[in-house]
Amino acid sequence: MFVPSIIIKKKRGEELSKEEIDFLIQGYTNNTIPDYQMSSLLMAICLKGMSEKETAYLCQAMINSGEVVDLSNIEGLKVDKHSTGGVGDKTSLVLGPMVASLGGKVAKLSGRGLGHTGGTLDKLESIPGFNINLSIAEFKEAVRKVGLAIIGQTSELDPADKKLYALRDVTGTVDCIPLIATSIMSKKLSTGTDCILLDVKYGSGAFFEDINDSIELAKCMVKIGKNMNKDTKAIISNMNQPLGNAIGNSLEVIEAINTLHGNGPKDLVDLVVNAGSIMLVQAKIYDDINKAKIDLEKSLKDGSAFNKFVEFVKQQGGDISYILDPSKFPKAKYTIEVLSKKEGYVEKINTIGIGQASLYLGAGRAKKEDSIDYSAGIIVNKKPGDHVNEGELLATLYTNKEDTNYIIDEVINDFVIVNNKTNKLNVIDEVIG
Amino acid sequence: MFVPSIIIKKKRGEELSKEEIDFLIQGYTNNTIPDYQMSSLLMAICLKGMSEKETAYLCQAMINSGEVVDLSNIEGLKVDKHSTGGVGDKTSLVLGPMVASLGGKVAKLSGRGLGHTGGTLDKLESIPGFNINLSIAEFKEAVRKVGLAIIGQTSELDPADKKLYALRDVTGTVDCIPLIATSIMSKKLSTGTDCILLDVKYGSGAFFEDINDSIELAKCMVKIGKNMNKDTKAIISNMNQPLGNAIGNSLEVIEAINTLHGNGPKDLVDLVVNAGSIMLVQAKIYDDINKAKIDLEKSLKDGSAFNKFVEFVKQQGGDISYILDPSKFPKAKYTIEVLSKKEGYVEKINTIGIGQASLYLGAGRAKKEDSIDYSAGIIVNKKPGDHVNEGELLATLYTNKEDTNYIIDEVINDFVIVNNKTNKLNVIDEVIG
Repeated sequence: MFVPSIIIKKKRGEELSKEEIDFLIQGYTNNTIPDYQMSSLLMAICLKGMSEKETAYLCQAMINSGEVVDLSNIEGLKVDKHSTGGVGDKTSLVLGPMVASLGGKVAKLSGRGLGHTGGTLDKLESIPGFNINLSIAEFKEAVRKVGLAIIGQTSELDPADKKLYALRDVTGTVDCIPLIATSIMSKKLSTGTDCILLDVKYGSGAFFEDINDSIELAKCMVKIGKNMNKDTKAIISNMNQPLGNAIGNSLEVIEAINTLHGNGPKDLVDLVVNAGSIMLVQAKIYDDINKAKIDLEKSLKDGSAFNKFVEFVKQQGGDISYILDPSKFPKAKYTIEVLSKKEGYVEKINTIGIGQASLYLGAGRAKKEDSIDYSAGIIVNKKPGDHVNEGELLATLYTNKEDTNYIIDEVINDFVIVNNKTNKLNVIDEVIG
Repeated sequence: MFVPSIIIKKKRGEELSKEEIDFLIQGYTNNTIPDYQMSSLLMAICLKGMSEKETAYLCQAMINSGEVVDLSNIEGLKVDKHSTGGVGDKTSLVLGPMVASLGGKVAKLSGRGLGHTGGTLDKLESIPGFNINLSIAEFKEAVRKVGLAIIGQTSELDPADKKLYALRDVTGTVDCIPLIATSIMSKKLSTGTDCILLDVKYGSGAFFEDINDSIELAKCMVKIGKNMNKDTKAIISNMNQPLGNAIGNSLEVIEAINTLHGNGPKDLVDLVVNAGSIMLVQAKIYDDINKAKIDLEKSLKDGSAFNKFVEFVKQQGGDISYILDPSKFPKAKYTIEVLSKKEGYVEKINTIGIGQASLYLGAGRAKKEDSIDYSAGIIVNKKPGDHVNEGELLATLYTNKEDTNYIIDEVINDFVIVNNKTNKLNVIDEVIG
């Protein structure tokens, strides 16, 4: 097959065949097709789209580019959850142990944070000793034994995605629903999971600002999952406020621990209980979603979810003394209180601004090579719907950096305060699939 | 400036600024912007287009990527002609000397043939000793002294085009009017010419089959020229038959010599007289186009155009004994007569088929590395409008290859013969600019 002819076919908006897509992905993975041909094709895909069939073929070809974890020896349906990422999104740290405590088998591949969005791997690595680089054998053993394992992308799984993701980042081809959907789904499906729950976020702190884009992405991923006979559902959730109150790595781990002790912020608890109930029904552990919700809420109160979290951290080499006593986490040198300049009600929070402020305080990476200050971040004290007095605490900043005063004003401006009473935001807007 | 942001801007269909385009072309030329970013941008340009402004900026940036020949010391307006390429197109070999014999200064950069389309450089190199690699100083001296010089692309002139052209070839981004137009015009304008006549061909042997695409390309190039204050005009000419009768390198040189002696085929003479008269008016040597036509016709009869051709060949190191006695050109080992299987009138000729047959006989290159057999090619004996008897000669094939019998049937089928009387084809359909 002649690569330029395939590129021209897509440029004209025609549908590529399974054979053509397999040829492209195989060739790109084994370096016989160069970056400059693939990037031209990716741009043509961005502008001409892909049919449902092509998207399924592409996803399958990406999965086939590497190994697929065989979890068939582990009893029961394996279930995974994926979030498109947001600010303060520590869902996996809470949801994983909850679902596992009720018999779910969660085999999870996670990513790192980049820009204003945090990553689950970075949060986990703020726990001293925590190892995200398990071998595939260790990963399977952890899922079998604990019911929950979270690792980073490995070179064995979905190498095509690794190359494509890096190329898209530098060629203006990130923002493309079929490419986003196949990237997420191929990674998820190469872990050998049976069911997937997607948490597709929208709003100022999310990948897509517009809920309609998020719905389109969710539908595309659900179709891919169905085409591959995997039970796939998606929730559409609101990122027009940080999730919970903590943003920053160890700050979020501590909030997750508090939540697992039954003391979580309402929006986070809402999200994990709803998401968890869908996952438990997908895994056929429950057939009544309301019964699942009740048991998930119970798992936060009776210590079973927390105990599962301890077990999980221990299995992956983390120092559980930090989990048992979160005051052991290193504290940032500087604590800065951000006070409201006026009285009123919080209408909304410019969540991307809060995420970026957290990044500047040291909690995130602007570039891939940057290192992270695990203790840095922000605790938000007010959320949409809350009343605030002049001089009252809006947020607390934690940092080891000097000269971060300029961030205070930015954070103040991220809180939109109005005179009239405002409402709390819904967490989940829609369930798809 | 951040390259992915510029790519995304074009992906969204927005107009790029002069600064952005300069940055991209400079970076690409000096290798700080990699192929994979440029190819993604090229695909976005193919699918989202470029405004008149952007196209002019791009052309200027490409010209600025290298040297521009300074012809200002040569008296009078310098004039160039460019053909988008066709089958049997030996126009430059005849038109150049004609215009130069009447005082025109023709400074010309030409290309090689690829695929079914021949290249002027290959035709010239079929003359033993002819040197297309003049230094820029030698090029200027030849234009000053002879009034005509033809050289190949050099590394000093328009290096951006050289890189972009090669990249487009392998990334499915050849077929894009602003990219074709800027490639042609930047090459032309880097020779320092003042006036340009474009010969944009359409039909089965041309780059565009459809006359409307050719008109669009012509208009785009004329606009670029005007934006750069260069007198630019275009003729739209028909490639639904080979130009003249000879196809193949030394065969075309011999036909050019015959034409310069006043014995040229009608369609070729029509084209050179019309094109030449436009060029002479552009160069302000004539103000009456009909007077120019009469003098051009005279130049073919009184030997002045032929003498100029001899002078030109001599100046560039060619052995003029071949020009004075064309029977010295090496002959192909095999001469194969293609006879008509039926009686009737030639309605049209599948010109691309004739071009490909000539390529297979040895006259062209399928790949850039291929070598050329200068003696190989085809002499077409019948053209649209001609009557043909069963068993009458349609064409003669010249080749040094064995086993070319399969080409005979292909060539027979390239002649569309009908029962009713047919018309000769117009050579020039339109003049633009």
